[in-house]
Amino acid sequence: MSRRLWAEALGSFFLFATVIGSGVMGETLAGSDTAVALLANTGATAAILFVLIAMLGPVSGAQFNPAVTLVLRLRGSETNASAAALIAAQVSGGVLGVWAAHAMFDLPVLQVSQHLRSGPGQWLAEGIATFGLVTTILLTARHRPQALPASVALYIAAAYWFTASTSFANPAITLARSVSDTFAGIAPASVPGFVLAQLSGALLAHLFDRHVMEARAT
Amino acid sequence: MSRRLWAEALGSFFLFATVIGSGVMGETLAGSDTAVALLANTGATAAILFVLIAMLGPVSGAQFNPAVTLVLRLRGSETNASAAALIAAQVSGGVLGVWAAHAMFDLPVLQVSQHLRSGPGQWLAEGIATFGLVTTILLTARHRPQALPASVALYIAAAYWFTASTSFANPAITLARSVSDTFAGIAPASVPGFVLAQLSGALLAHLFDRHVMEARAT
Amino acid sequence: MSRRLWAEALGSFFLFATVIGSGVMGETLAGSDTAVALLANTGATAAILFVLIAMLGPVSGAQFNPAVTLVLRLRGSETNASAAALIAAQVSGGVLGVWAAHAMFDLPVLQVSQHLRSGPGQWLAEGIATFGLVTTILLTARHRPQALPASVALYIAAAYWFTASTSFANPAITLARSVSDTFAGIAPASVPGFVLAQLSGALLAHLFDRHVMEARAT
Amino acid sequence: MSRRLWAEALGSFFLFATVIGSGVMGETLAGSDTAVALLANTGATAAILFVLIAMLGPVSGAQFNPAVTLVLRLRGSETNASAAALIAAQVSGGVLGVWAAHAMFDLPVLQVSQHLRSGPGQWLAEGIATFGLVTTILLTARHRPQALPASVALYIAAAYWFTASTSFANPAITLARSVSDTFAGIAPASVPGFVLAQLSGALLAHLFDRHVMEARAT
Repeated sequence: MSRRLWAEALGSFFLFATVIGSGVMGETLAGSDTAVALLANTGATAAILFVLIAMLGPVSGAQFNPAVTLVLRLRGSETNASAAALIAAQVSGGVLGVWAAHAMFDLPVLQVSQHLRSGPGQWLAEGIATFGLVTTILLTARHRPQALPASVALYIAAAYWFTASTSFANPAITLARSVSDTFAGIAPASVPGFVLAQLSGALLAHLFDRHVMEARAT
Repeated sequence: MSRRLWAEALGSFFLFATVIGSGVMGETLAGSDTAVALLANTGATAAILFVLIAMLGPVSGAQFNPAVTLVLRLRGSETNASAAALIAAQVSGGVLGVWAAHAMFDLPVLQVSQHLRSGPGQWLAEGIATFGLVTTILLTARHRPQALPASVALYIAAAYWFTASTSFANPAITLARSVSDTFAGIAPASVPGFVLAQLSGALLAHLFDRHVMEARAT
Repeated sequence: MSRRLWAEALGSFFLFATVIGSGVMGETLAGSDTAVALLANTGATAAILFVLIAMLGPVSGAQFNPAVTLVLRLRGSETNASAAALIAAQVSGGVLGVWAAHAMFDLPVLQVSQHLRSGPGQWLAEGIATFGLVTTILLTARHRPQALPASVALYIAAAYWFTASTSFANPAITLARSVSDTFAGIAPASVPGFVLAQLSGALLAHLFDRHVMEARAT
Repeated sequence: MSRRLWAEALGSFFLFATVIGSGVMGETLAGSDTAVALLANTGATAAILFVLIAMLGPVSGAQFNPAVTLVLRLRGSETNASAAALIAAQVSGGVLGVWAAHAMFDLPVLQVSQHLRSGPGQWLAEGIATFGLVTTILLTARHRPQALPASVALYIAAAYWFTASTSFANPAITLARSVSDTFAGIAPASVPGFVLAQLSGALLAHLFDRHVMEARAT
């Protein structure tokens, strides 16, 4: 297994463990005060994103997200084979991270979320969230690459709050959250709608960048 | 439509969607605990400002604010035509962002705010807030341009709390907030007072910079 | 009046307005939940410190603090005349900032704090807080000058919480807070103890740096 | 005593004083709202970590952590003698910091924690937390060294929330927290389990980096 795949698996492990673990910790400490729980969940997620992108970006690109990997495949930066391997590493590393979070908090390792999340507002939110994430990655990589770790982290921090869905914006995280019946979970039945909305948003961001931002005169 | 105008519209869309959306999310989760709601609103706004200025600054200047555009017109960096087009892009992109936030949260898209905000304290606050914002932009652009994304984001974060008006500091945001009857809204009747105070603060900052900071010996 | 003095006055105006204004806003919104009020006060203060030091550091050194100015006088970077003028600008700009905060929040402009803050724990806290602040400035300026805005901002953020006094660490702010009977105020009778502790901490930091950090072999 | 040892002692003093002091302040102000207390504890700890690593990294490496020092000994960057001296400086500076925090808050200086922390979930959490910390340090130092202050600070911020143990991840801090019967304390009987888990995680990170990240082809 190459260093790139190890990097994607390692990063997804810590990212997904943080999403789930800080959700559990937040809910445990904050109880019914979900605003404070979500603040903690937001801060922890943004913090680890900065760390992981800063240290693993130079190794694997620090994608941790199949929607991003697929856009890079469309742009020719990844091959079919490399994209498939990266996504496999993201999902398997990420699910291990979810299970590690369960084990740390003395919860049953194997769970299935009961938390239904669907409806037009939620799907629009995931579409906009992923459109914004992919646009942020494409434009920041082109115009200010050294800001990528901070920009992706802060974009997700904002999107946890400005979208109605708390911005999953990542098919691998969506899948992995479905095996956690905790604060950040999503019921398996709600996964396809979220993933479809995310892929639509990512595709739209790719097209917008190609046909508007790259194509126009200043 | 040029890349600059797309950049201003895109940035205003996400900025205004964040201001409104994170206000709705904060109010929904925090209930009567408005301090926590405003903390979340502040964090999300500052986070997206950093992201948008970092990625769109090199394209359009990342103004997203007619008061800033008008100061740049006074300084000769924009023409009448470019300033008018930028402001149109800011307002239309921004209003679309507000409507997108409403749609994501399953709220009626078309609303009018009932939230009256006026009085000498509020107007003084908007004047000081905009004076500080424009001064921050002018001095940071001159002395430490690479800090602009962080500085503008953090200035607004501070100003949400140190001013009595939570620092709108932006005529386009003021207008766009008037069509949202949510946490961050402002009644249409209160808009002219806010905009006048903002433009006064911006003009004062321009004059202060020109006649004091630029003119004096060290 | 030179550009340096304007910069110190302008920076102190916004810094002190933020300390007082965000304290009023925090207390108003958070009520008896002083932890949340102090979180907001901390975030706003740290944010504006970054902004002001980034934009005014290249102009005046962005001292905003007589204890820092006096240490720079001891080290020969300032003359008696320049130090006296800077301190006068800090105090007068800062007091105007406090009054502006009062005016924005529709409070009486002229006030005197009733909040007694004294005792060995508080004085030790101010001594340690100022020792740490001056050490941070001296070592960061020598080893990583581009981090000064972030480091001073984050040092103060930490010190608001790790010291029992919420870390005033600045004789001008101490004086200015005594004319504000709000969240961040300090009774005039408590000012001399605080200032003495601050100057002792600053002097100790100067001596520690000169005789330990600068003098020793690696 | 060399400058390196002073730097490690000074940094550990402020780091440990912040961990304990901000815990006391948070608990005092937030009362039973432990989520807000931990948010404040997290913010203060991350903030001071950035400051200390930025200013002392160029002097001593800013380790402040025997698990890190031992990994550097395994890699040949430290000798037995330098590692022993650094660890002694970390522990003694750190314990003084804990005592200073007690004195500032008018608490008895000498205390012993009653807070039992043990069980497989806690030990797994400390192992993962320290594995992640050492991996962050090794990879960030190699791929993006200028991000070390921010990355270590933000890693610890995330780990306070994603681990069930609030991530001590440092044998010296674990020892020092055992002499503080406050928010951040740990009973002496629980120290060996934590330290063993931390050293295991650190060793695993060293082996993972050497045999996977360094050894593999891209």
